[in-house]
Amino acid sequence: MSGKYSEALAAHIIASKPEALNEADRHEAKRALVNIVGCALGGADHPAVDITIGALGPFAGAPNCAVLGRKERFDPLLASLINGISSHVHDFDDTTPSNYIHPTSPVASALFAYASVNKVSGLDFLNAYVLGYETVTRIGNATYPAHYQRGWHSTGSIGVFGAAVAVGKLMGLDQAQMLNAIGLAATQGAGIRDNFGAMAKSFHPGRSAQSGYVAALLAADGFTSGPRPLEGPRGFAEVTAGEYDLDIVTADLGRDHLLALNTYKPFPCGIVVHPTIDACLQLHAEHAFGPEDVAAVELRVAPLVLDLCNQREITRGLEGKFSIYHAAALALVRNRASLAEFSDEAVADPAIAAMRSRVNPVADSSVSEDGVEVDLVLTDGRRIHKSLEFSIGNIRKPLTDQQLESKFRDQVRVIGESQSNDVIGRLWSIDTLEDMQGLIEATLP
Amino acid sequence: MSGKYSEALAAHIIASKPEALNEADRHEAKRALVNIVGCALGGADHPAVDITIGALGPFAGAPNCAVLGRKERFDPLLASLINGISSHVHDFDDTTPSNYIHPTSPVASALFAYASVNKVSGLDFLNAYVLGYETVTRIGNATYPAHYQRGWHSTGSIGVFGAAVAVGKLMGLDQAQMLNAIGLAATQGAGIRDNFGAMAKSFHPGRSAQSGYVAALLAADGFTSGPRPLEGPRGFAEVTAGEYDLDIVTADLGRDHLLALNTYKPFPCGIVVHPTIDACLQLHAEHAFGPEDVAAVELRVAPLVLDLCNQREITRGLEGKFSIYHAAALALVRNRASLAEFSDEAVADPAIAAMRSRVNPVADSSVSEDGVEVDLVLTDGRRIHKSLEFSIGNIRKPLTDQQLESKFRDQVRVIGESQSNDVIGRLWSIDTLEDMQGLIEATLP
Repeated sequence: MSGKYSEALAAHIIASKPEALNEADRHEAKRALVNIVGCALGGADHPAVDITIGALGPFAGAPNCAVLGRKERFDPLLASLINGISSHVHDFDDTTPSNYIHPTSPVASALFAYASVNKVSGLDFLNAYVLGYETVTRIGNATYPAHYQRGWHSTGSIGVFGAAVAVGKLMGLDQAQMLNAIGLAATQGAGIRDNFGAMAKSFHPGRSAQSGYVAALLAADGFTSGPRPLEGPRGFAEVTAGEYDLDIVTADLGRDHLLALNTYKPFPCGIVVHPTIDACLQLHAEHAFGPEDVAAVELRVAPLVLDLCNQREITRGLEGKFSIYHAAALALVRNRASLAEFSDEAVADPAIAAMRSRVNPVADSSVSEDGVEVDLVLTDGRRIHKSLEFSIGNIRKPLTDQQLESKFRDQVRVIGESQSNDVIGRLWSIDTLEDMQGLIEATLP
Repeated sequence: MSGKYSEALAAHIIASKPEALNEADRHEAKRALVNIVGCALGGADHPAVDITIGALGPFAGAPNCAVLGRKERFDPLLASLINGISSHVHDFDDTTPSNYIHPTSPVASALFAYASVNKVSGLDFLNAYVLGYETVTRIGNATYPAHYQRGWHSTGSIGVFGAAVAVGKLMGLDQAQMLNAIGLAATQGAGIRDNFGAMAKSFHPGRSAQSGYVAALLAADGFTSGPRPLEGPRGFAEVTAGEYDLDIVTADLGRDHLLALNTYKPFPCGIVVHPTIDACLQLHAEHAFGPEDVAAVELRVAPLVLDLCNQREITRGLEGKFSIYHAAALALVRNRASLAEFSDEAVADPAIAAMRSRVNPVADSSVSEDGVEVDLVLTDGRRIHKSLEFSIGNIRKPLTDQQLESKFRDQVRVIGESQSNDVIGRLWSIDTLEDMQGLIEATLP
């Protein structure tokens, strides 16, 4: 009666042994955590976080749980939500290229909250994270592209599964409970893509983290869900995707290591505009021109880029993260693409706005989603070209450990340099920590 | 840039004046509230409620909010969730026949929580309820049947809009805030139909009530969502339905009164099996036979009935609510269909189980979803027939006010008869109450 894919996934989660984590996965998981904690601390003072705390803080439970990068303490469910918002709001967190999910925010946001109020060893934490990552990525791959193309922000709508199984693993759920946790996660997927460019985008992984945690708590106490959450005729895949291959969820479970295919962003914006930014920065390095010399910017991009990022008239920094016009313009005007270039101020900058008006993107299905073709037409008549097959941060050109550390330091303002170094150091040796508490407390201002 | 349907809906909610509620809508809204409060008190001692309180109570905020039919107090967000579970768990709440949504549970569950911690007049409460009802029903009609056929439990996935606008109305949101509340609701729709037959079905309106309340709170403080939550190319209708007519959301807004089309259940189970139950009860009244005399039960039902309720092998009371086999069997064996006939005990009853094995339903598209054709083949060779066009509780044969009161008293065990009468009396005069507090407190054991 119950579903074979859901059952197999639950069984795998339960059977997994932290000691069996191989060295490559350990290291990649640490890289993902260095990245996500940097993002959470970088976003911890964003207005979206302040508003959430102002609006929902009055309804929080006992203040026993730390929130990454904040002084306040809340109950762990609200902390999960806030961690998810802060770690995603700058669109600087990791991406799985196979399905465009940002898998670590929903999973780690719940885990950091759970580990703040329960004793959890670093190795158990790391293992739960890997299981959550794998669950999100497998369900994401199994339902891609149909789920995403319908307009789901799968970071939220699929991320919830990862939070549920990761917290459920640490809680020690049995098979029936884990199945119910998966079922309760399946029914809480949140995230429609109309919210791209608004604070609600970051709400998605936050709500997923919180909802996954709720799913695990309810399941642990015997709350029941349907028997075929993934594969039923009214289950997640059918309801939210329609076309899917659930064999992908369970194929080589525990043997292939999907973490190796995770990527980290060098620029805080939608990943599909990264090639454009990188190409424009490279043109700057290779040729002598100023913003005033650029008459036109002709881009050939993959169709998905325009599907996601075809907004020229924008007013908010968060909108700038999903504008191919802004991406090219900021790189050409400011010759860098840091958090500051995606602020409300940068979007309003007349020089950048003028450059946006000169950007002309064309969708071309012969261009891959990793690449771009850029032609600058200069006022003196010169035409300079850059063809980029893939950009920095791409799976074929990943950020190094040192670049990840620099990214962490560059975006973190809520704690100082030495405290940042302490947090980074603890993350690289997380699998030796007896209790995650010290690491979590080290992130607090 | 922002969507015309979302804008018009928000504007209507904001402009609505409680004093303008006409007498017919006031009375129908009171009927809906008598029904839902009875359901909430009837479900308040269900294991699904106990488990939720045990699992999530430890994370609740300040205990200042009453929960219908319970002694405990929690924060209003958790109270919204619990009210939603208790009022839907017996599948005894109201149904809008045009889209099969149970609209009052998600809306009223949030409103009762809000009114427990904020001073709200009865008339303002009634008006907010009507606006929430109308919002759910209009979005439901606009996306029916595609949304439902994809496998969404629209009571949850659409109910969240009603909770958001109803709470938002009482909070006094302005146009931009109301639009953001609608956007934050659109992205939190919860409910896949794989959960029919499990506790998670009742979690859907509960989570919707809670999520709608959260949407209103965040929006009030300036949290932003996307601009076209209903109509965007990645908005709710496109993402969750694909086929829809959003003109239905705004046509005659404030002029037609959809509440008149609401219905109340005489039997605590999926509404599509009601004709079968009613027909079997009528056969009992018209012919002399006992369970042992029934050799076979032949049913011709609308295709939707088998789509939803084709489970013969069941073990749980909640599954019995969605089994056409159980529906016919309990009526033929016990000659009644009260809460007791949908308990685990009744599902396990050997006489009912034996009768289930003799039920043979056939889908026939010439039979309407309101009706049924029943043929009993008796062991003595007789064949008796009942053709039912519509059953008791149907929009063409609605429960009377007195029947609604009896339904309330029959299911409520957590408070006594005189307290029940007090609650019912206050509900019939709700539009005269200066503060909802007294009514809400009167529901507590």
